[in-house]
Amino acid sequence: MKFDLLRTDDRARRGRLTTRHGVVETPAFMPCGTQGSVKALSPAELREAGVAIVLANTYHLWLRPGPETVAALGGLHRFMGWDGPLLTDSGGFQVYSLAHLRKVTEDGVRFRSHLDGSEHLLTPEKAIEVQRALGADILMCLDECAPYPVTREVAERALDLTLRWAARCRAAHPGDEPALFGIVQGGVHPDLRERGARELQRLGFPGYALGGLSIGESKAQTAEVLAYAPELLPAGKPRYLMGVGAPDDLLEGIAAGIDLFDCVMPTRHARRGSLFTARGRLSIKAARHARDERPVEANCPCYACRTFSRAYLRHLYAAGEILALRLNTLHNVTYYMRLMAGARSAIEAGVFDAYRRETLAHLAAGPDDDGTPGGGTGADHA
Amino acid sequence: MKFDLLRTDDRARRGRLTTRHGVVETPAFMPCGTQGSVKALSPAELREAGVAIVLANTYHLWLRPGPETVAALGGLHRFMGWDGPLLTDSGGFQVYSLAHLRKVTEDGVRFRSHLDGSEHLLTPEKAIEVQRALGADILMCLDECAPYPVTREVAERALDLTLRWAARCRAAHPGDEPALFGIVQGGVHPDLRERGARELQRLGFPGYALGGLSIGESKAQTAEVLAYAPELLPAGKPRYLMGVGAPDDLLEGIAAGIDLFDCVMPTRHARRGSLFTARGRLSIKAARHARDERPVEANCPCYACRTFSRAYLRHLYAAGEILALRLNTLHNVTYYMRLMAGARSAIEAGVFDAYRRETLAHLAAGPDDDGTPGGGTGADHA
Repeated sequence: MKFDLLRTDDRARRGRLTTRHGVVETPAFMPCGTQGSVKALSPAELREAGVAIVLANTYHLWLRPGPETVAALGGLHRFMGWDGPLLTDSGGFQVYSLAHLRKVTEDGVRFRSHLDGSEHLLTPEKAIEVQRALGADILMCLDECAPYPVTREVAERALDLTLRWAARCRAAHPGDEPALFGIVQGGVHPDLRERGARELQRLGFPGYALGGLSIGESKAQTAEVLAYAPELLPAGKPRYLMGVGAPDDLLEGIAAGIDLFDCVMPTRHARRGSLFTARGRLSIKAARHARDERPVEANCPCYACRTFSRAYLRHLYAAGEILALRLNTLHNVTYYMRLMAGARSAIEAGVFDAYRRETLAHLAAGPDDDGTPGGGTGADHA
Repeated sequence: MKFDLLRTDDRARRGRLTTRHGVVETPAFMPCGTQGSVKALSPAELREAGVAIVLANTYHLWLRPGPETVAALGGLHRFMGWDGPLLTDSGGFQVYSLAHLRKVTEDGVRFRSHLDGSEHLLTPEKAIEVQRALGADILMCLDECAPYPVTREVAERALDLTLRWAARCRAAHPGDEPALFGIVQGGVHPDLRERGARELQRLGFPGYALGGLSIGESKAQTAEVLAYAPELLPAGKPRYLMGVGAPDDLLEGIAAGIDLFDCVMPTRHARRGSLFTARGRLSIKAARHARDERPVEANCPCYACRTFSRAYLRHLYAAGEILALRLNTLHNVTYYMRLMAGARSAIEAGVFDAYRRETLAHLAAGPDDDGTPGGGTGADHA
């Protein structure tokens, strides 16, 4: 894997990640292909929407269908029909949020599967082993993501464990192909973040992530961390802000020097009938769309906007049609890709700050037909 | 609407239906777009699968979003993004099967909506009014479809009511654009079917349907009706066998001189993980597919078969992924379209009987990997 920093605009960065499975122009957003499928979309639709890289969840694929099965079928790319770059997480976050957690020890995390109650032990070495079997282009170290809020002591213990686990992950995967990213924990504490970044660089990774954000802290607190944390990381390596976020969060992250993002927001909101637009989120369920002939966004190139009215999308959603989930998801992912493409162009042109401020102003204006306060950038993206 | 009988091969017919929204080469199968969407598929995918005409259900669209809404949005074609031919049923069958039925009287059927319990009266005139508002290319008369089994007296009363309602439908819609089809009832009684066909022709319709089959009678009984009923209808008009059916049923129907079919089988079975192949149905849920790299059918041109393994489809289904429903449905509809295209070619070449017998033999052989008895043409297509 190769990362080229093509251009900076203040702290915003325009980069290019070159992997065995293709190129990712950064800043980039990765939709979540949790169980080996970006929910409701086909790989062909991801391409058409402009998606360059997909995230898949190690926890889910480990439990079902299992890394041996995926490996026997030629690896995750071939299995899921996505020949572009893939990133897998370590499985840790889902163990903390989904599994019946038994115990975090020095060795790893013992848990019971949310599917069948079977007991498993996720160690740093196991996280690497499973991810290597899946065959993604970017792997993530196992970390301990402390919840928010916690005491400084708890945050520090999580950081320390994360650093020891990072060393074990690096030992288990010393090469750089596929690329293994280290994760900086440390909560909202600048000195912990600083120590985390320093220790990880001592181990040496081809990329770095900021973890433990977007888990309940306020936007102001996230902004505080973003004000200093990205620049603790080496300029020549990609920086990934995990689990973020809403459109405004992405813009703030890019402004702070982040290159990669992932979040379930566009796909999950779609399945709940919440559609992203340049003027904030629009609830397709609302009665006011019942006879609205307009597309969700007039200038959106997605198949949903090119073909169907808001009225039809509302009908499909109300009627429980599968096509509703497809079209809503396609639109939301397309929106995210356009937002990121706009950011990349703005950085290239050296006008990112204007792009950011203008986009935020439009988002805050609210949908053009309902008079509700805009923004639509709620925080339910856990 | 125009119907050209291009060629016959024994009793099988190769025809062409020309509507305002395009041409339907017959024999043809119509997938069910119940609520204004063929479940899980986009209109673009229907086209790619070779679908020429879609059926939509008047009952569902009447209750939600309502014919006034569909009409205000430019009619059903525009609403659902399908610019090809559309047929709407009368609403009767769903009233009998889904609604809380209050009472069948001379006037019509009083029922309560399965959605909200609201009370409605479906008369022959109302069925026409709603269908005209929806704007399909082919409309159906309201009929009374007696259940099976019933006494001859009940079947005869249903036939008589159906004929009086057909006269009222014809009076409410005397023109031939859109085309209104009459429905022959009469159960398994040749003299009733004969009288039904004769009386309907006296009223004069641009097309005729056989109703009241595939509702619980045996395949042998259906075959008996098909042995004489299609030829009671005029050769120069299209003949539609309602609610049929499995692949073998379609072949037998074509052999008997039927031009049009509809059934929820391909779409509903897909959502239950049952995939149609030339060698019968295959349950994608089965453990034997867990590491099967082969596509569902090697020679199938659908996106699912071109892109994904049985193992991946099994995983998607087990994991509850929306993409499973999409890919399964796409395959099944493509299978149906290929079966019908094969039948049309065979009739053109004057070898339909050989095509029918060979296809039936392959279906009976069963999937190539599991040794279970073949066929896969179960009767759960109500």
